[in-house]
Amino acid sequence: MTILDNLVRRAWDRELGVSSLTPIRSLEERVAAWNELARRPLQFQACDATDYPALLEAFRSTRPDAIVHFGQQRSAPFSMMNRDAAVATLVNNTIGNMNVLWAMREAAPDAHLVKLGTMGEYGTPNIEIEEGFIRIEHKGRSDRLPFPKQPGSFYHLTKTSDSDHIYFACRAWGLRATDLNQGVVYGLSTDETVACERLVNRLDYDGVFGTVLNRFCIEAALGVPLTVYGLGGQSRTFINIRDTARCIALAVESPAEPGEFRVFNQFTEIFSVLELARRVHYVAARRGLEPRIEHLPNPRVEREAHYYSSTNEHLLSLGLEPRLLDDGVLDDLMSAAVRFRDRIDPAQIAPAISWAAPFETAAGRAAVGAVPA
Amino acid sequence: MTILDNLVRRAWDRELGVSSLTPIRSLEERVAAWNELARRPLQFQACDATDYPALLEAFRSTRPDAIVHFGQQRSAPFSMMNRDAAVATLVNNTIGNMNVLWAMREAAPDAHLVKLGTMGEYGTPNIEIEEGFIRIEHKGRSDRLPFPKQPGSFYHLTKTSDSDHIYFACRAWGLRATDLNQGVVYGLSTDETVACERLVNRLDYDGVFGTVLNRFCIEAALGVPLTVYGLGGQSRTFINIRDTARCIALAVESPAEPGEFRVFNQFTEIFSVLELARRVHYVAARRGLEPRIEHLPNPRVEREAHYYSSTNEHLLSLGLEPRLLDDGVLDDLMSAAVRFRDRIDPAQIAPAISWAAPFETAAGRAAVGAVPA
Repeated sequence: MTILDNLVRRAWDRELGVSSLTPIRSLEERVAAWNELARRPLQFQACDATDYPALLEAFRSTRPDAIVHFGQQRSAPFSMMNRDAAVATLVNNTIGNMNVLWAMREAAPDAHLVKLGTMGEYGTPNIEIEEGFIRIEHKGRSDRLPFPKQPGSFYHLTKTSDSDHIYFACRAWGLRATDLNQGVVYGLSTDETVACERLVNRLDYDGVFGTVLNRFCIEAALGVPLTVYGLGGQSRTFINIRDTARCIALAVESPAEPGEFRVFNQFTEIFSVLELARRVHYVAARRGLEPRIEHLPNPRVEREAHYYSSTNEHLLSLGLEPRLLDDGVLDDLMSAAVRFRDRIDPAQIAPAISWAAPFETAAGRAAVGAVPA
Repeated sequence: MTILDNLVRRAWDRELGVSSLTPIRSLEERVAAWNELARRPLQFQACDATDYPALLEAFRSTRPDAIVHFGQQRSAPFSMMNRDAAVATLVNNTIGNMNVLWAMREAAPDAHLVKLGTMGEYGTPNIEIEEGFIRIEHKGRSDRLPFPKQPGSFYHLTKTSDSDHIYFACRAWGLRATDLNQGVVYGLSTDETVACERLVNRLDYDGVFGTVLNRFCIEAALGVPLTVYGLGGQSRTFINIRDTARCIALAVESPAEPGEFRVFNQFTEIFSVLELARRVHYVAARRGLEPRIEHLPNPRVEREAHYYSSTNEHLLSLGLEPRLLDDGVLDDLMSAAVRFRDRIDPAQIAPAISWAAPFETAAGRAAVGAVPA
């Protein structure tokens, strides 16, 4: 197993002045720790997916059976910061993904691509979300077609574009691929990080890279309000970090057929943001904490009350046994927040980036709804 | 009116060793000719849409009411040549389009964007193609969602991605836009080119930029076989070059509402490739020509026999009066071919680029079907 990584995320952290709550080690240290612990050794090669000759050479030299492509800018707020960040996201994600496809065609045409997508690609349609494709009956005819997508940020747009590119490469070149449309990941610990502290995962709580459930736990532990964006009626899919790791293994162990483009909706549960805040409040209260739930003006442009339902049958049928959200995982997050309390910069928690400001036409304000001042 | 152009297409022509059948003038000469003829003068500014500061400055200085964005790499075969050409297409089209959106947000938020898309974004679904959106009934619920797309080349993928980006910018920022999903354009002359020869349009017949109906006419005039890719059962939408110009005007004259993303299917007729070959054969025969119809191995990966139906109501309801394909326009094309016969390089006609070769796994061959040797 070989990790290819350009380490750009750590550079972005420095640029933005944010950092993981947990003191993650350098990739070299983490790989060394893994190799002391695990049966299958890991190698690390510095490689940027936008550098085609380097990527091609890496595929040639490693001769992969499976390529797990997670090397992307993964923050929606980051992509909405300004034009440069939107284009950086596009270049890193879309050109990187296109390079993976061309390098597979040239050097690894029989490998199985496992690509990280996001449930956010679908948006919030008023019908049940299927796994990548939907049978549509229309004017007396019928076809199985790609599920219509309504991505909600420039980041999400790169993910839908990647999916379209990979689907095309499967049709045109006979590549095989699995697109993992992942929900919001929560949790910190896995068996490996419990066994070896040097493997500790990153835990983001800032307004750019932080995700909602982790942020609530950290806010609770800090004794600051749980910050709900807007009404909190936004329903989203969620998955425990332990299940995320298991899903990747399941996809790799049962590869797609040549020419097949599979889409797995990789989540286990659906919650509204406000429900999550209440769950965290409940667990925090047992620790003697009484966080307020505070509604901030929503920095995103999104529906705050809507129908939401999605299937996730594929991974369950491959044997995924969901580890549902329980009080233990919330408590684990709060413990980490307490333990690393001196690493926290409370100023980083607030949403830093608005989808709409400083857009100032009447039309913009009408479209956007509640825009922060 | 201001034209912004980076003139990259002419550079690509030189690089690929191809050229227009007609001797198109430099853009400066064409603008000068237009300004002698027309009521509304044109200006030209050299500007690359991928150069954000230049684009932003152009929007600031011209203060446009409408932005007609046609500045894209428009050849599917070009985008399939190799990795570099695919990425060049992505960078030119997708980053250019993203820059247009950010520059509108910053400097022209109330302008109306009229963007050139393509009917090829939809692929060939087994249901009727609607204009951008479709009402889907699914498991007892209903929503109006983006029409599912199945683009068939890296070029087409940039167009679907552009559509998704523009739709997002309308939702998030309240921009207004019309996406013109254009069919294959045929024909050479418009009233303006008839009135002034210096305004003559380009006429591509090569394997990279040439389009099917124009190519057939040129082949007929040359006395070489009409080259049908594969079976020729591929149905596509078509539009006369005169109607294309009229559609842009109609879209500009009736702008979208703030926040609205409209999609117009910009075509007037549907033909199969083989039908077109037969139409051209018929007109050619009246000129005493007897071109053979020759089936080449299809360089593209596409269905060669399929259902195809699409609506085009929006432009008709705005007043488009279709100029249907008639023998006159075919004859006009053949006359041009005869007139500029000494400019033709017959070697350029053959398809230069295969979607699949030199992909050589069994899966690839199975997926691809008839691949040229």
